[in-house]
Amino acid sequence: MAATPRIGIVGVGRMGANIGRRLHETGYPVVALYDANQSVADEVARELGAELVRELARVTAASDVIITVVTDDAAMRKVFAPTGDSLLTGAAGKIFVNCATVSPGIHVEVERLAKAAGAQSLEACMASSISQARAGTLYLMCGGERSAFERVKPMLDKMSSSLRFVGKAGEAAKVKALVNMVMNINTAGLAEGLGLGESLGLDLTMLREIFAQTGANSRVLETDGEDMQNHDHACFFSAAHAAKDSGIALDLAHDAGLSLPLAEATKRQFDAMRAAGLGELDKSGIAELTFASRRSAALRT
Amino acid sequence: MAATPRIGIVGVGRMGANIGRRLHETGYPVVALYDANQSVADEVARELGAELVRELARVTAASDVIITVVTDDAAMRKVFAPTGDSLLTGAAGKIFVNCATVSPGIHVEVERLAKAAGAQSLEACMASSISQARAGTLYLMCGGERSAFERVKPMLDKMSSSLRFVGKAGEAAKVKALVNMVMNINTAGLAEGLGLGESLGLDLTMLREIFAQTGANSRVLETDGEDMQNHDHACFFSAAHAAKDSGIALDLAHDAGLSLPLAEATKRQFDAMRAAGLGELDKSGIAELTFASRRSAALRT
Repeated sequence: MAATPRIGIVGVGRMGANIGRRLHETGYPVVALYDANQSVADEVARELGAELVRELARVTAASDVIITVVTDDAAMRKVFAPTGDSLLTGAAGKIFVNCATVSPGIHVEVERLAKAAGAQSLEACMASSISQARAGTLYLMCGGERSAFERVKPMLDKMSSSLRFVGKAGEAAKVKALVNMVMNINTAGLAEGLGLGESLGLDLTMLREIFAQTGANSRVLETDGEDMQNHDHACFFSAAHAAKDSGIALDLAHDAGLSLPLAEATKRQFDAMRAAGLGELDKSGIAELTFASRRSAALRT
Repeated sequence: MAATPRIGIVGVGRMGANIGRRLHETGYPVVALYDANQSVADEVARELGAELVRELARVTAASDVIITVVTDDAAMRKVFAPTGDSLLTGAAGKIFVNCATVSPGIHVEVERLAKAAGAQSLEACMASSISQARAGTLYLMCGGERSAFERVKPMLDKMSSSLRFVGKAGEAAKVKALVNMVMNINTAGLAEGLGLGESLGLDLTMLREIFAQTGANSRVLETDGEDMQNHDHACFFSAAHAAKDSGIALDLAHDAGLSLPLAEATKRQFDAMRAAGLGELDKSGIAELTFASRRSAALRT
């Protein structure tokens, strides 16, 4: 890829929009945006000087590299549909970089479809959040053909502070599913510890300090502990996403014949949040289920 | 406490013996040891030049400060029995420093009994393991009367690198129960992540590296991750202890009317280890339940 490639982005939610902003400011022309939610996408398109398109095929036509950051497996299947409006139309020579957290099998399927259309595809799973997307400091784990990885590496370097080629298509998604499964378990466990601490009348600031210095320490204690205590659940990574990702891991476990009681209990908690209308809170909002002072309010919602 | 106080220790298992060694080398005369297991205690007594005693009352008679590091609530009640052979006999002027992880209510009860006998008591909960006890780098959380804390502070300073007065009797035990509850959840969750990683054919060394750099990171990843991968479960903190400590936290949660599904699932896993005869493995041995390659062997034991 000699000249600076033109970028198209499908899915300009919190992550997709910030990836676009970062690439824009590092000199990549972001030429085409597509999102099911037109009004949000419209704002981002104005900001980046990109064309807001209504047809997926138009993203492919306008771009050299098409980045997808969609919601789930169904959305991935939709944008890469074999028939109808699809990113695959006229895709020969193009390369797809798929950043959403979806099932590993989807990445294998998309790679096959892309190849049949004369294109390449790469999975680039993000193990970081919104502010890292904006700053170009994502933790990116890639899966696919090595040649696809090398082809877009200069762009991926602008998006990430840590870039890792994990293996063939689907492998990065497996690792990502495991990362989020363990992160979600630690989050749910922390919410139980702080919730019980509150019930016992302990000073939660002190409790978090002690957790940080002992075997209870974790990354989620740093990122979510204070938010749990302060009831601050502005969304970086939603409970609904957490439920989805734990679900991907549990599907893999099921296929492997493994029973994972902690992951299952965690999934049930995030599902309970969704059922209570709290799915769009940040994952730290799981504390709303474990703090006695908040539980009834949460369940009334 | 003007002169260097004479130390007695009740319970010279892995932790108690190392506390004794540390105090001995820092100039404290360790004069009396007591343990239900006489043969182990005999070795430690020879090493430290202490008297191995067969009556609890003799520990109290020989010592100024009596450190207890016993197994559980029942053992604490036994050594502080109101009648029969007891540490409380002739205890006027003595001070008890209770290091075992037991229910908060026990510390309140022992403080009351000690006071009635003209003695003081202090809870000194340890949030660290065997090597820290040996090196005098324990993380110690104390609860009780401030005057009791100040009285033994010079000795506690020799035992710890971090010393914290948490509040009245029982408060430190509450914090400790929460630390271990959260630690145990993170441990059980990590074992699920690595177990599923194995089933998916992932390189577990790579997976641990990625966990360490992402939201899946935790203190137990550092302390137990490699051991889980390598099947190395030499005991620092036993599965049986983990089950007991999660049980203490769950009792507190029950009293508070809280349901904690992650803590409950974790307790069931450690209970399953005990039932399978694996209770004396290190807590990292929980991986034996989640690695498909090991599960059947573990359950045959």
